[in-house]
Amino acid sequence: MNDIKDWYERPHPVTGERYIARDEPGYVDIPTFMRCPRPAAIGEADIAFVGVPYDGQATERVGARQGPRQIRDVSTTLRAINHATQVDPFALCRIADAGDVRLPRAFDVMDTIEDIAGFYRPLKAAGVIPLSAGGDHSISYPILKALAAEGPVGLIHIDAHLDLWDTYLGSRYHHGSQFRRAVEDGLIDPKRMIQIGLRGAQNTREGWDFQRELGIRGIYIEELREIGIEAAVEEARRIAGGGPVYLTFDIDALDPVFAPGTGTPEIGGITTFEAQQLLRGLRGLNFIGADLVEVSPPLDPSGNTALTGATLM
Amino acid sequence: MNDIKDWYERPHPVTGERYIARDEPGYVDIPTFMRCPRPAAIGEADIAFVGVPYDGQATERVGARQGPRQIRDVSTTLRAINHATQVDPFALCRIADAGDVRLPRAFDVMDTIEDIAGFYRPLKAAGVIPLSAGGDHSISYPILKALAAEGPVGLIHIDAHLDLWDTYLGSRYHHGSQFRRAVEDGLIDPKRMIQIGLRGAQNTREGWDFQRELGIRGIYIEELREIGIEAAVEEARRIAGGGPVYLTFDIDALDPVFAPGTGTPEIGGITTFEAQQLLRGLRGLNFIGADLVEVSPPLDPSGNTALTGATLM
Amino acid sequence: MNDIKDWYERPHPVTGERYIARDEPGYVDIPTFMRCPRPAAIGEADIAFVGVPYDGQATERVGARQGPRQIRDVSTTLRAINHATQVDPFALCRIADAGDVRLPRAFDVMDTIEDIAGFYRPLKAAGVIPLSAGGDHSISYPILKALAAEGPVGLIHIDAHLDLWDTYLGSRYHHGSQFRRAVEDGLIDPKRMIQIGLRGAQNTREGWDFQRELGIRGIYIEELREIGIEAAVEEARRIAGGGPVYLTFDIDALDPVFAPGTGTPEIGGITTFEAQQLLRGLRGLNFIGADLVEVSPPLDPSGNTALTGATLM
Amino acid sequence: MNDIKDWYERPHPVTGERYIARDEPGYVDIPTFMRCPRPAAIGEADIAFVGVPYDGQATERVGARQGPRQIRDVSTTLRAINHATQVDPFALCRIADAGDVRLPRAFDVMDTIEDIAGFYRPLKAAGVIPLSAGGDHSISYPILKALAAEGPVGLIHIDAHLDLWDTYLGSRYHHGSQFRRAVEDGLIDPKRMIQIGLRGAQNTREGWDFQRELGIRGIYIEELREIGIEAAVEEARRIAGGGPVYLTFDIDALDPVFAPGTGTPEIGGITTFEAQQLLRGLRGLNFIGADLVEVSPPLDPSGNTALTGATLM
Amino acid sequence: MNDIKDWYERPHPVTGERYIARDEPGYVDIPTFMRCPRPAAIGEADIAFVGVPYDGQATERVGARQGPRQIRDVSTTLRAINHATQVDPFALCRIADAGDVRLPRAFDVMDTIEDIAGFYRPLKAAGVIPLSAGGDHSISYPILKALAAEGPVGLIHIDAHLDLWDTYLGSRYHHGSQFRRAVEDGLIDPKRMIQIGLRGAQNTREGWDFQRELGIRGIYIEELREIGIEAAVEEARRIAGGGPVYLTFDIDALDPVFAPGTGTPEIGGITTFEAQQLLRGLRGLNFIGADLVEVSPPLDPSGNTALTGATLM
Amino acid sequence: MNDIKDWYERPHPVTGERYIARDEPGYVDIPTFMRCPRPAAIGEADIAFVGVPYDGQATERVGARQGPRQIRDVSTTLRAINHATQVDPFALCRIADAGDVRLPRAFDVMDTIEDIAGFYRPLKAAGVIPLSAGGDHSISYPILKALAAEGPVGLIHIDAHLDLWDTYLGSRYHHGSQFRRAVEDGLIDPKRMIQIGLRGAQNTREGWDFQRELGIRGIYIEELREIGIEAAVEEARRIAGGGPVYLTFDIDALDPVFAPGTGTPEIGGITTFEAQQLLRGLRGLNFIGADLVEVSPPLDPSGNTALTGATLM
Repeated sequence: MNDIKDWYERPHPVTGERYIARDEPGYVDIPTFMRCPRPAAIGEADIAFVGVPYDGQATERVGARQGPRQIRDVSTTLRAINHATQVDPFALCRIADAGDVRLPRAFDVMDTIEDIAGFYRPLKAAGVIPLSAGGDHSISYPILKALAAEGPVGLIHIDAHLDLWDTYLGSRYHHGSQFRRAVEDGLIDPKRMIQIGLRGAQNTREGWDFQRELGIRGIYIEELREIGIEAAVEEARRIAGGGPVYLTFDIDALDPVFAPGTGTPEIGGITTFEAQQLLRGLRGLNFIGADLVEVSPPLDPSGNTALTGATLM
Repeated sequence: MNDIKDWYERPHPVTGERYIARDEPGYVDIPTFMRCPRPAAIGEADIAFVGVPYDGQATERVGARQGPRQIRDVSTTLRAINHATQVDPFALCRIADAGDVRLPRAFDVMDTIEDIAGFYRPLKAAGVIPLSAGGDHSISYPILKALAAEGPVGLIHIDAHLDLWDTYLGSRYHHGSQFRRAVEDGLIDPKRMIQIGLRGAQNTREGWDFQRELGIRGIYIEELREIGIEAAVEEARRIAGGGPVYLTFDIDALDPVFAPGTGTPEIGGITTFEAQQLLRGLRGLNFIGADLVEVSPPLDPSGNTALTGATLM
Repeated sequence: MNDIKDWYERPHPVTGERYIARDEPGYVDIPTFMRCPRPAAIGEADIAFVGVPYDGQATERVGARQGPRQIRDVSTTLRAINHATQVDPFALCRIADAGDVRLPRAFDVMDTIEDIAGFYRPLKAAGVIPLSAGGDHSISYPILKALAAEGPVGLIHIDAHLDLWDTYLGSRYHHGSQFRRAVEDGLIDPKRMIQIGLRGAQNTREGWDFQRELGIRGIYIEELREIGIEAAVEEARRIAGGGPVYLTFDIDALDPVFAPGTGTPEIGGITTFEAQQLLRGLRGLNFIGADLVEVSPPLDPSGNTALTGATLM
Repeated sequence: MNDIKDWYERPHPVTGERYIARDEPGYVDIPTFMRCPRPAAIGEADIAFVGVPYDGQATERVGARQGPRQIRDVSTTLRAINHATQVDPFALCRIADAGDVRLPRAFDVMDTIEDIAGFYRPLKAAGVIPLSAGGDHSISYPILKALAAEGPVGLIHIDAHLDLWDTYLGSRYHHGSQFRRAVEDGLIDPKRMIQIGLRGAQNTREGWDFQRELGIRGIYIEELREIGIEAAVEEARRIAGGGPVYLTFDIDALDPVFAPGTGTPEIGGITTFEAQQLLRGLRGLNFIGADLVEVSPPLDPSGNTALTGATLM
Repeated sequence: MNDIKDWYERPHPVTGERYIARDEPGYVDIPTFMRCPRPAAIGEADIAFVGVPYDGQATERVGARQGPRQIRDVSTTLRAINHATQVDPFALCRIADAGDVRLPRAFDVMDTIEDIAGFYRPLKAAGVIPLSAGGDHSISYPILKALAAEGPVGLIHIDAHLDLWDTYLGSRYHHGSQFRRAVEDGLIDPKRMIQIGLRGAQNTREGWDFQRELGIRGIYIEELREIGIEAAVEEARRIAGGGPVYLTFDIDALDPVFAPGTGTPEIGGITTFEAQQLLRGLRGLNFIGADLVEVSPPLDPSGNTALTGATLM
Repeated sequence: MNDIKDWYERPHPVTGERYIARDEPGYVDIPTFMRCPRPAAIGEADIAFVGVPYDGQATERVGARQGPRQIRDVSTTLRAINHATQVDPFALCRIADAGDVRLPRAFDVMDTIEDIAGFYRPLKAAGVIPLSAGGDHSISYPILKALAAEGPVGLIHIDAHLDLWDTYLGSRYHHGSQFRRAVEDGLIDPKRMIQIGLRGAQNTREGWDFQRELGIRGIYIEELREIGIEAAVEEARRIAGGGPVYLTFDIDALDPVFAPGTGTPEIGGITTFEAQQLLRGLRGLNFIGADLVEVSPPLDPSGNTALTGATLM
């Protein structure tokens, strides 16, 4: 316990006094994620926040490359203990801000997939669970390449869109195809994959066909409204089962009034309260990582989309 | 089928290659409504999008004259096939963008009513069903003058306000009186008229009195919350019946969080999901036209109000 | 009746014609609250709108000092008669805009508490019921010092936060401690106090402890979703009972999509429709005053947060 | 002197203490123009601020009807004594806020022209000099109808546009023709009329022709840059001469970076510093009134355009 | 003359009446560039507006892919005849809106360069002069590949940045290297190249070295302020000479207050008035095309940056 | 040289590879000021960026407490080498981000003055030159208390306001009196003090009187326009002389179009180009520290005010 407290309580570089940055008012200090330490080496952390400032595979409006910056910024207003759980995560584990993935070849789609995957491999090797912020949704694919290298994992996928489409604008890799690629590459077990909140219209039927043919469970918004969040949680737990599972949350699963700052908003989505219920309901699963993607700051300068994203994380 | 495909697949003026504009990314190309063709003559179309850039009868904050422009702009991100219906409307009929109504006497209320009605008469004569975007809500009156010239029609009216008031600021014609005028002129059958989503406060009781006296069915927001959308749909179908019916949707029926860009927002409104359910539930009625009004771009530069409007259309 | 009409119908200083300012279009005239008169002396009014432009005890983002100005501005679009009640409050009582509390020592926390309390004492003496707009939530404490001087009153408190915390940044007085102070000072009877909409996370547990130890009834958002608004209303009426009661509404009780313009937004809150139901359900209680606080205009230049606030008032 | 001080120092309706509203922080109190008194009758004032919330003759983007409201709002941050002149206008004359012109027939162009003129006649009769805020620029015409009823006056007109065009959209009266109409009606002496800051492009040449044929002096932006503000001031003084003169300032004379909130911005305009020099240079002329028009709040929610307008006033 | 008038005056698809779209109020009609016709085939036009909705080579904040859309939108408020020149370009030549370049391989940098070049070749073959709107500044390179295929041309380059840098993020092709590539490929004659408005800081010196070594004339902002616009115009005319010359205008040459909506703003830039003087001063040169780039709508939702861009075009 | 390079080139906590954070694209990484290191102890740095997130002495619109956060954010787009000087400051000295001043007693004006002063004393003791970002302008007073403890220093003060006023709202200490207090306390030598850019109007004359009586040199905006920046620079160098001098820059010295995000904007100010000239002209003086204050993010969510501020720093 002592050394968890030491993890967060560090000396100020000017005055030398030890203090917990998270306890300052929200607008104070350099914005690491929830003002967690950014350690010299990541190995001592239990959980690491990672930013992936990349939107090179977005098909419509861009800007999600600026997402990690804004999520860090607004995350500093968040507090530790939720009334419902009365759990203080900062008393239980060492959370670090691992900084951003470096992207030295950002203009090339295939090179960047490799660069992102390469960043996650040492985290996995060190046993640090990554909590990532995008960037566009394509980043889930290289993350899974690193984390699911030893065999397919389960996937809980909360989104307005299936992201199971095929080639677009000449590329097999884009932010609407990443889970098709991940299934094809054996990174995801389609029988342990569930998609919740689906509703986006499309110009072709190929994504819906792929979903049906591989037996991926999809809870469309109409079914979700019909059965309620609690039943959706149970279904997700049943599908994901006890094995390793990855969680991916596209902010556009939310209704655009809750998350206007995203590239492809779809009206008629879930509320933040429902998203909170959904995520809290998944506690206890064997998560190997999670991401929250498609927060696009230029499309919501108020930061409210990012605040929602940060709170959900 | 072939000639419907030909309708949408047209040659590029520079390269000559045939392509479907709607399949490009949303930010590409000149924004006709959903990037439908703007034909040289409207007669070949089945359905025509019409803009009515007029807010000269608005009583409070103005700006709806800019609505058609912004609705066209954001409509280009919409896609064709909805997962729920799996219907592709672009495979079934020829939709055109007929441009905007011309308003050469916009400073005069009565002349403009005549100009708008005059624009819709050739559409009706050609058997083209108009799907109109306002503009303030007063435009429904001249549209009905053209479309219901042969006798009263049914009206499904989704709105926060009754729009059954009488003279205001010295004028019998304004965006709060158009359906009183239409009933008085025999364009609407009050027994086949239903109003859904009502809730706006007023300074006099005359509108409520008119509604009650003529037997117009009103579903106020409290009743709507009580009975649910499905029952409201059934009631609307019962009231409208099998005859010709016109659909009019004031964007302020939605709660202001879904549609901030409107002149007279009223809190406590319906959600976009409910609006989608409502509209989908009305399929199969004998619609002679529809409009979506009161999208006011200066009051929502983000375009999200317009996006909602365009999606509902 | 006549003299109530005279209260609102006053001569224009230029033309001398008598008119009711409230009947003008919303953008016309100097924005007093709902364009009520600002009398030369307040004693003749039944109810007085009071602005408290003070945010000197806010702990995070500031700006609520500008709240009264923006609430007045948007209030001029509101109309008198609600369809549900068909009651016209302006036919029943004389409402005045009493202007803003003067704050000649605004840099000093203790002096300002005294200045605010001093402003409300003549209102109480004259039997005028104050309807106040903040400002940060700390203003409820000096208001209660004036209104509850003769003994503890009941409190209906709608908020995302408990505001029962203790010292912060070295001060016992701030916008998260005002009701702890008011209970300690005997201004509030904790047995007649209810808090609705609670959900904000915290860094310490002291507020929750205080609530439980003093037997203050808290309806957290999860319980509220479980039991519904109607049951919450009944519970509030039961707790408040027949004695004098004060109503305090922190705009952050609402979900941030309904009220983005506030200093400490918390996702997952109530809707404006629910807030309306809640407030209408409380009619008939023995209210000695009410306030609406934490509307922060710089954080929502659209004015929609203020419009929501004004409508709820 | 004493009674000028009494004019501004008035008792608070609640506490009774006498105070000068203008000395409060800018965000405090009901926003009359610069927090001047709104007297029960206007006759005692020397100068009266008048709002004309009308944009019914605007040809492009509307919203100027909301101008007086926003100008009042931001005017409360202005202070009395300018360092350059060291003159305190509030020590020299009684300034009143006369409220807004009433517009009971706002949908009719000709009726409204008469209503506005009718409002200014008692002001002229009482010897009160009106300082007006638009509204669109058409309001200058009815104001001149009242103020120049006895014979043509001089006009100093600062604007990007000539406003000497003829019929548009079927109307001879609109916000681009008002000075052509005023010259034709003998309200303005074209030989004593000067236009400064002109630059807007047009689709026809009729305005330029009218200007040249009647000998109206125009200083286009290129000449203004060539000769400098000082020479323009001298030219304006020479043209206007010693007789009665009216000053009209269209906010779009300024470059759009200084005044984005206006309906027809034209790039390449003057700076606020230049505008200040220009206006200060005109002191001592025999002004019978002045207006500032075309501030359109929906197009600049920040209020900076209005602040600029209020400062210039 | 007649057939130029016929070019612009076309029948409305609904009413059949002939009208000139450009003469309607600015908010009316489908926004082609300045509401020029979009012909079925481009060959009959003299000048063609082309949109290049591409920002795949931007290094910092993105969004310029949405530039052509917004420039078209605001261009419809522009009018034909400038007071200074009294020339009506629409009376002299047929201007078309050629739509947007199609980008079917947008995720690949090299393929897209080829696709853009391929679009301009038929325009050059048909003798149509292209006036292009970006998109990021990288688009000038493929345009020059098409237009300067027969030998190096002169370049007048107005920009805050040199765009002569080398490899960045692993790519030789990006929006800071396009003119280095064009010089290397023999598309530009460095002796006939001039850069005006330069001021951006950099992390390496390679761009400045390249400029100096190849003898490219650079007018940095300090020199521009020293010598004035007129002298800069003369210098540009001297450098460009009588041969074919291309004009490229990066909106970030302007000070950010005039053009906030751009990816890499640099304070201390030129004004729009200066830009207008500069461009007007270049008339009569032998232009083979021109572009205006880096207008990024998500960074300026007001559209004022785009309006400035459109006006300059 | 080597160890300066080592200062900036540090290993990534995940991959271990050494890299210079400043060379990444601007949106990457945790935003320390210009992505300088935040060392464990400050003593090794030559210059330290310090944030002072405090606006508790602001008299009008607040929000400057959020200034350091936003300045850090936008500073990451800045690059090292300016073309004019060709100097790379990062090759010459070790710059650190020292984080924010801690403010554990932020509600009390006098305690906070002491807390801020206490933070700067160890910096002075270690010989680190502080470059501070406010916060409201009151922070200069405690900074000077620490840095000028041994005797009065010179002051170059760029501002729209004198900040030499006396008591306001009952407090001698506020963001309009700090330099009066500093002169009175012997921290500033009034003969070595110069104020540039002055223009704000006031309600009393006491500030101007103090300035004149103590012989403080003031260059008002009119004189500045008259004599030009170069002469102002010379005058500032002459007044400041060779002794230790402090530089303080209130962002409202700039015209509001360059810096809308500030609490008390005054039209008619200097341009960013002039500010750059001014600051570059002061190089070589014996600076003991500098600050840039009054950047208020809620009043300019675009970040352009902060970008301007960061660039000037």
